[in-house]
Amino acid sequence: MLYFDTDYNNGLHPLLLQRLSETNDQRTIGYGFDEFSIKAKQKIREACECPGADVFLLTGGTQTNSTVISSLLHAVEGVVCADTGHINVHEAGAVEYTGHKVIALPNHDGRLKAEDLDRCLTEFAADPTADHCVRPGMAYISFPTEVGTLYSASELDALYQTCQKHQIPLFIDGARMGYGLTSDASDVTLPYIARHCDVFYIGGTKVGALCGEAVVFPQGNAPRHFFSIIKQHGALLAKGRLTGVQFDALFTDGLYLKIARHANQQAKRLRDIMTRNGLRPYNDSPTNQQFFIIPNEMIKKMEQDVVFETWGCYDEEHTTCRFVTSWATTDDELGALEKVIRGIGS
Amino acid sequence: MLYFDTDYNNGLHPLLLQRLSETNDQRTIGYGFDEFSIKAKQKIREACECPGADVFLLTGGTQTNSTVISSLLHAVEGVVCADTGHINVHEAGAVEYTGHKVIALPNHDGRLKAEDLDRCLTEFAADPTADHCVRPGMAYISFPTEVGTLYSASELDALYQTCQKHQIPLFIDGARMGYGLTSDASDVTLPYIARHCDVFYIGGTKVGALCGEAVVFPQGNAPRHFFSIIKQHGALLAKGRLTGVQFDALFTDGLYLKIARHANQQAKRLRDIMTRNGLRPYNDSPTNQQFFIIPNEMIKKMEQDVVFETWGCYDEEHTTCRFVTSWATTDDELGALEKVIRGIGS
Amino acid sequence: MLYFDTDYNNGLHPLLLQRLSETNDQRTIGYGFDEFSIKAKQKIREACECPGADVFLLTGGTQTNSTVISSLLHAVEGVVCADTGHINVHEAGAVEYTGHKVIALPNHDGRLKAEDLDRCLTEFAADPTADHCVRPGMAYISFPTEVGTLYSASELDALYQTCQKHQIPLFIDGARMGYGLTSDASDVTLPYIARHCDVFYIGGTKVGALCGEAVVFPQGNAPRHFFSIIKQHGALLAKGRLTGVQFDALFTDGLYLKIARHANQQAKRLRDIMTRNGLRPYNDSPTNQQFFIIPNEMIKKMEQDVVFETWGCYDEEHTTCRFVTSWATTDDELGALEKVIRGIGS
Amino acid sequence: MLYFDTDYNNGLHPLLLQRLSETNDQRTIGYGFDEFSIKAKQKIREACECPGADVFLLTGGTQTNSTVISSLLHAVEGVVCADTGHINVHEAGAVEYTGHKVIALPNHDGRLKAEDLDRCLTEFAADPTADHCVRPGMAYISFPTEVGTLYSASELDALYQTCQKHQIPLFIDGARMGYGLTSDASDVTLPYIARHCDVFYIGGTKVGALCGEAVVFPQGNAPRHFFSIIKQHGALLAKGRLTGVQFDALFTDGLYLKIARHANQQAKRLRDIMTRNGLRPYNDSPTNQQFFIIPNEMIKKMEQDVVFETWGCYDEEHTTCRFVTSWATTDDELGALEKVIRGIGS
Repeated sequence: MLYFDTDYNNGLHPLLLQRLSETNDQRTIGYGFDEFSIKAKQKIREACECPGADVFLLTGGTQTNSTVISSLLHAVEGVVCADTGHINVHEAGAVEYTGHKVIALPNHDGRLKAEDLDRCLTEFAADPTADHCVRPGMAYISFPTEVGTLYSASELDALYQTCQKHQIPLFIDGARMGYGLTSDASDVTLPYIARHCDVFYIGGTKVGALCGEAVVFPQGNAPRHFFSIIKQHGALLAKGRLTGVQFDALFTDGLYLKIARHANQQAKRLRDIMTRNGLRPYNDSPTNQQFFIIPNEMIKKMEQDVVFETWGCYDEEHTTCRFVTSWATTDDELGALEKVIRGIGS
Repeated sequence: MLYFDTDYNNGLHPLLLQRLSETNDQRTIGYGFDEFSIKAKQKIREACECPGADVFLLTGGTQTNSTVISSLLHAVEGVVCADTGHINVHEAGAVEYTGHKVIALPNHDGRLKAEDLDRCLTEFAADPTADHCVRPGMAYISFPTEVGTLYSASELDALYQTCQKHQIPLFIDGARMGYGLTSDASDVTLPYIARHCDVFYIGGTKVGALCGEAVVFPQGNAPRHFFSIIKQHGALLAKGRLTGVQFDALFTDGLYLKIARHANQQAKRLRDIMTRNGLRPYNDSPTNQQFFIIPNEMIKKMEQDVVFETWGCYDEEHTTCRFVTSWATTDDELGALEKVIRGIGS
Repeated sequence: MLYFDTDYNNGLHPLLLQRLSETNDQRTIGYGFDEFSIKAKQKIREACECPGADVFLLTGGTQTNSTVISSLLHAVEGVVCADTGHINVHEAGAVEYTGHKVIALPNHDGRLKAEDLDRCLTEFAADPTADHCVRPGMAYISFPTEVGTLYSASELDALYQTCQKHQIPLFIDGARMGYGLTSDASDVTLPYIARHCDVFYIGGTKVGALCGEAVVFPQGNAPRHFFSIIKQHGALLAKGRLTGVQFDALFTDGLYLKIARHANQQAKRLRDIMTRNGLRPYNDSPTNQQFFIIPNEMIKKMEQDVVFETWGCYDEEHTTCRFVTSWATTDDELGALEKVIRGIGS
Repeated sequence: MLYFDTDYNNGLHPLLLQRLSETNDQRTIGYGFDEFSIKAKQKIREACECPGADVFLLTGGTQTNSTVISSLLHAVEGVVCADTGHINVHEAGAVEYTGHKVIALPNHDGRLKAEDLDRCLTEFAADPTADHCVRPGMAYISFPTEVGTLYSASELDALYQTCQKHQIPLFIDGARMGYGLTSDASDVTLPYIARHCDVFYIGGTKVGALCGEAVVFPQGNAPRHFFSIIKQHGALLAKGRLTGVQFDALFTDGLYLKIARHANQQAKRLRDIMTRNGLRPYNDSPTNQQFFIIPNEMIKKMEQDVVFETWGCYDEEHTTCRFVTSWATTDDELGALEKVIRGIGS
């Protein structure tokens, strides 16, 4: 069986596994005060060029989103995002569970547009009934987006300027941050991200770790008692070393970006394979998630040999499907995938 | 000054005031166990032809919506409504504050369509990622809607059948119920409402009372401990007689419907006045809320003599405005309104 | 039947009823922006000697407590109170429903002691595991307490200084504020209250109104968007005049204090009646709630003629019972009560 | 430095590490549907002798407690526990954050007594104001307790019968379950636990895993949509294999109990060392957490060589301290500890 369903269908990158093994016998204090976590946070600060940043290591994406968002929103505030935003669709209402509305605006190939955000905020400010409404209290975007697309440096800049104009924080969900940073199509770096938002996280789970997301408040601007907030959300690991060791390894010798770059390259090859075999891409994703419009009868045949995700109905005879690469995707697997497709085509 | 801004710009109907005065010296037990509340509930059961109904008297609309909705939804469930639904727009996120998502579908002149609801529920059931999503756990509609429109008997029936097919409850927000029941355009009665949903409320605040909404679970199907839930939501009046006496009076000799009928008649006259003076209606509201498309410069002049609500931008030169009648709207006021408009027009 | 169960078993004070009647026909804007509410708030500011105070009119006590408390607490904070505090016992978990812990300390005849509060806060600050605990984020006391007792001026001062030392706000629940201010045993005035806490409310429901509690932030220190917070909690009356007119009347010509003084005097007479007929007081309440230790067999007999509350088991043969007076308690009723008791005794 | 502060100051047990390494290259589906998780759950069912049990693997203790408790409680219900209960003290208000009160009863050496629970539930049922109060909706105990003590089989039975009598579920927090099951002082087995509660969890984090808690609903009685509830709480691992592989290993060849037994044996030796060197035990803990009353000046000296927890002030001159053993505690470490203590004593 060939697995292209996700970037979390594998274990952890061998170098991370090695570090977990090497450090296993050391005794450390808990809750993220171990030396590995401390080193990891310092390396993340350096990679972000934010010496004063507050860094916290959490376990998963939904958890991170609801913890960060609820900590930033005041009473009667909601979070603005694209209607395709992960928090609006695939987090089982985790944000609403914390008491806050998700205010969804139309997406543009997965992206939230600065103009739309500005209009939303401007109209709210002018609405005579605003005090009876949920206040748009922060903006949330994903980089890359849920459909693999990216924000350019100037788009990010426009979004952040809009947020600053209206005095609300911008939060960037970087569950797949690495793939965005290392995409050929990207003109954005980690320090650029850090300079263009109020808080973001660097995803580990989907970029080579077993689990772990590193939340960064670039200006040391974490909400007070954020450690306790993490605890209250059930997001605090007793053995903080689990994420500490992994992020320490990910941010040593540029491993995080290497992992992501490899996956992006394999995604490009995958895209070539698909298109040269007649399968239409659904969009222009330049990252490790690739979407294709596939005839329904072909899907059935492919599923005998390949695991991938059906993303949504395209038309009566086609379905949009997602294929994802990771640190573990080999050339052999790609070759085998092409064989499968050709076998069906013939 | 002429007031057409709302149906709650006045005090309470004189007969209700009289009853409050007459009963003021009586001692009663609190929290809705007084004789007036008990009688009011019995009369409501009779008016609804639901002898086994559970009836509770709350104070206001937003309070009632969030109390009822949160009591019916299970974990990870949300409430489906039209995007114009009061709970989605003008309740400051009260539903989300209880931890549940409002799932907004496109409105059709303020209405939720049974087909849209069915599609939403059917697609959810078929979604392979459904377990990562908020479950549509109940449906909410307003009768009349927020733009004064109505559901026909067959539309209500279709909605309720859809809910039953998918095994979710239907909740009808009747903040202005009376105006819907007594509209010339309506083929729906209170017993019909009671037979076509799982819970609804009969609005008092906007139909002649000082405050008060009567929640009806027609089949005696109130969630267990609903009294305590009301208390927990801060919605329990110590002096329950305040709503008890008023609803007792409203449901004596058909006063509730009389009040509403009067307001609807005045609304019709208002509509005639507006149209014969060249002002375009925004929609076909057959109830006491009337919407007109008014030139912006005319609005400024009207506002010197008339209080009304600007509802939203229509185009660059026009604004949609809302005019509302009530039990207290007199012929004189309507005459004076026409004079004002003619004065501006000339 | 004689009613001594509560101070909310009657309607509203005749002068309030008169004002509701007189103003009923006036048109006003809604949501507390009517002229009556505005005047009421101004009179409250004057009575409190707080010209810059933010004043809001809500409907009931539990609602007010949960709205105010949740608006003041930050993430992972709880509210400290005496274990007899209303929020800890009789509000159906309304505070916890907003996501915050009630931290109960032992009561001293209903009172929270400054020393206990100081110890709690000092120990928390010194606790090495504090970041894993709920932070004591504000203090709540009731004046008078739930058992009718009072804080002296110096006790209030000590509590407020403790709060200031630890930089947490002090909130005074004044559901029965009037009875505390006018008690012979009290050396506290409304301006003194206003100078010795961060927020308090002046109860109307239990002091002559049909409903209504006036929240006062003495230093104009209401949390931002408090109006919207009220709305979100379902605590905003559309016809704000209902509470506006009543509080306007209550704070005209000292009516609020007159009502309370009368009830206190009747409570004193009631206490005399009880004790001279051999019934032991449970505590030294100097306000309108009086508690007595009554033989169980006597209770059964009294209940045939008198409505009162059994408060709790005292010993195997006695029960603590509560008797409450109000603006409406007449001399005749007290006389009749004495007759009943003598009848049983003989 | 010698570490006796916790049982989570180390990495994972070598056999678990080996299994993580061996399985790392396999591709699996996510979210706990991988073959390792499936096998782990099956082995847990067998170990519990509950073939129909629902089993879910979560990450940490606080997360598990708030997810399980909030899923079981209905509106206006709270959870009853000993005042020393972890959920009442050291989870930063995670339960209250879900909207529910923690109802704390006095502990008996860390234990909740069936008599106390019965009295609480009986008194609530008899309380005439019960509908204004938080309903005790479930009971929570820890096995072992937070101070290392145990419930005997008959105590567990009494608690469960009390819960059944009052028709509320019993939840057992087994963060350190293994140490309880393998204690010489215990007459309780895993199947016995499973037959004497409605839900419990088997702690992994503190018993040899890097992270992971296995929630067991013995009768297949998980609340509906519990998977989505886990997701909503941010408690769902994308790479479910992380906990799956570990629990699979823990429940292979009795490893879980072996790990716990070793720690208990070392705890006994530690206790002997302490007592024969004149240090008084604080209580009779028969598990891997040991508490001692240590002179304050001695603590300062010990801290130069040993990491342990100060648990609380005992008297002016003594502090209660906690020492904890784990799978990783060696004889050498215990020997070194004794040397340190003797060095100080001399």
